[in-house]
Amino acid sequence: MGRVTDRRAVVRVDLGATPAVRRAPDSLSAEEPLEIRVGPPGTRRAPLAVTMRTPGDDLDLAIGFLLTEGLIRDAGDVHTAQLCAGDQETNTYNVVDVTLSPGVPAPATDPTRNFYTTSSCGVCGKASIDAVRTRSRFDVTADVSTVDATALAGLPGALRERQRGFAATGGLHAAGLFTAHGDLLCVREDVGRHNAVDKVIGWAAREHRLPLAGHVLLVSGRAGFELCQKAWMAGIPTLAAVSAPSTLAVDLATEAGMTLVGFLRGPRFNVYAGAQRVRVPGADRLPPVAAAGSGRAGAAPTAAAPA
Amino acid sequence: MGRVTDRRAVVRVDLGATPAVRRAPDSLSAEEPLEIRVGPPGTRRAPLAVTMRTPGDDLDLAIGFLLTEGLIRDAGDVHTAQLCAGDQETNTYNVVDVTLSPGVPAPATDPTRNFYTTSSCGVCGKASIDAVRTRSRFDVTADVSTVDATALAGLPGALRERQRGFAATGGLHAAGLFTAHGDLLCVREDVGRHNAVDKVIGWAAREHRLPLAGHVLLVSGRAGFELCQKAWMAGIPTLAAVSAPSTLAVDLATEAGMTLVGFLRGPRFNVYAGAQRVRVPGADRLPPVAAAGSGRAGAAPTAAAPA
Repeated sequence: MGRVTDRRAVVRVDLGATPAVRRAPDSLSAEEPLEIRVGPPGTRRAPLAVTMRTPGDDLDLAIGFLLTEGLIRDAGDVHTAQLCAGDQETNTYNVVDVTLSPGVPAPATDPTRNFYTTSSCGVCGKASIDAVRTRSRFDVTADVSTVDATALAGLPGALRERQRGFAATGGLHAAGLFTAHGDLLCVREDVGRHNAVDKVIGWAAREHRLPLAGHVLLVSGRAGFELCQKAWMAGIPTLAAVSAPSTLAVDLATEAGMTLVGFLRGPRFNVYAGAQRVRVPGADRLPPVAAAGSGRAGAAPTAAAPA
Repeated sequence: MGRVTDRRAVVRVDLGATPAVRRAPDSLSAEEPLEIRVGPPGTRRAPLAVTMRTPGDDLDLAIGFLLTEGLIRDAGDVHTAQLCAGDQETNTYNVVDVTLSPGVPAPATDPTRNFYTTSSCGVCGKASIDAVRTRSRFDVTADVSTVDATALAGLPGALRERQRGFAATGGLHAAGLFTAHGDLLCVREDVGRHNAVDKVIGWAAREHRLPLAGHVLLVSGRAGFELCQKAWMAGIPTLAAVSAPSTLAVDLATEAGMTLVGFLRGPRFNVYAGAQRVRVPGADRLPPVAAAGSGRAGAAPTAAAPA
């Protein structure tokens, strides 16, 4: 708790003039759920929302959230706010308990208008940490498909050619569904990265293609927990991202038996989980990704500006 | 409806060797709310979630959302899905009505666990379009502060110097609060861009600095509706983004009397709303941003890869 970054082991692939594969520790942005509970004094605080956040400044996060959602007017509307350990043994300091000042109304709970708390952002918005994880009905662990590293290296270029909205605006995320051979089946663009993924998976569902065994989903940005979860729900064994993954995405991919590729922008990329699915020309299968080593984490191949 | 991009007028500022200010139309990524309603056959469909999305492929989006949230198993669980005009005259084709197949359980509505539908993603997750807009108690229109274009140009560098987590991981968003003179007051990093903004605003609230009249909030990525709304709720007159804004962010900024700056990466940037607040050395105040012209939209100064 409280760590902005954390380490995970990674397999670095470089298909350059001298193809190389090596294991190394890497620094990732930490991602953990924070449950915000709110109530008037003397009552049991009720779960209001869960956000997937980087630990740190959690009281500011809770107060800022309540304020920007219009639930409090200023900090004076909060009597106390404290970080606590939560109900579950596994959750450590991932709950903020907010007691409102006397006279401040508790958030509306009209079930006919606001009856189900989920969000297109995948997990944030769920009212309790319990609700964050949805288990897939597909056993991706049993998917023994592999993908050629050279095919992977070609995916970002293939996606980019189809990102017409991005070319026009510089402001759209994209998700592309590929076969293991690198053939692009479906690409969707959206202001919300989660929407782009949902549109691709919705298309595949309507085409009766689920589970998407042996497929690769490439996203134009970062890979957080929610995108990893969505890919898992569709039975996709390999999630690749042009930018960085988070700690929780790596942990979920590992647990689900998925392959997670990050910083995929061409012939150099990182494999954060499920490296056995990635075939490298002239080399054996990639070594398994193990627990982070103790050495200093190397830099990612390229650290691009967040967009 | 159905347009991936849309035009808005923009004021382009170039503080290069020959400072220039000109008005031009620009292509932006379209952003509109989509309400997803779900119910069994023969019943009134209940609002389940609202997502801020780019119009298009909305049935795929709804089906993909239901599937990746674990509410349906496959497309066969959906009896019908149709796009409709919604209850409000102003909402056109921003509602998808999903009728579940016989025997498919409707989403759980236990109000003790899932009683309030909001999300840290600002607006997505709210159960109806009505709930999307939260009006600020601060009248930003009355904020006559100005900001020097040269000071604006220096903000991204100042923020970047403090993005320690990003430097280590390449995977963290940042939000920085600046005075109109370009002094950095508070910077926060998070895997969620909305969280970074909430942490900054929560800090300001605890410091009793609200409303943040005359301040500038800089975000390291894109400026969507939700970030604009959060800035407005804190009384911040100027929101600047390193990357692109969406149509709805521009529309909200215009309505709220805010100044919205996009593609701010140095001495060249775009002003999408409230250009009267931006002072350019050796030039008069910027011309007001008016309705988009009819000429072909020029490219943004730099269209960076989504991250």
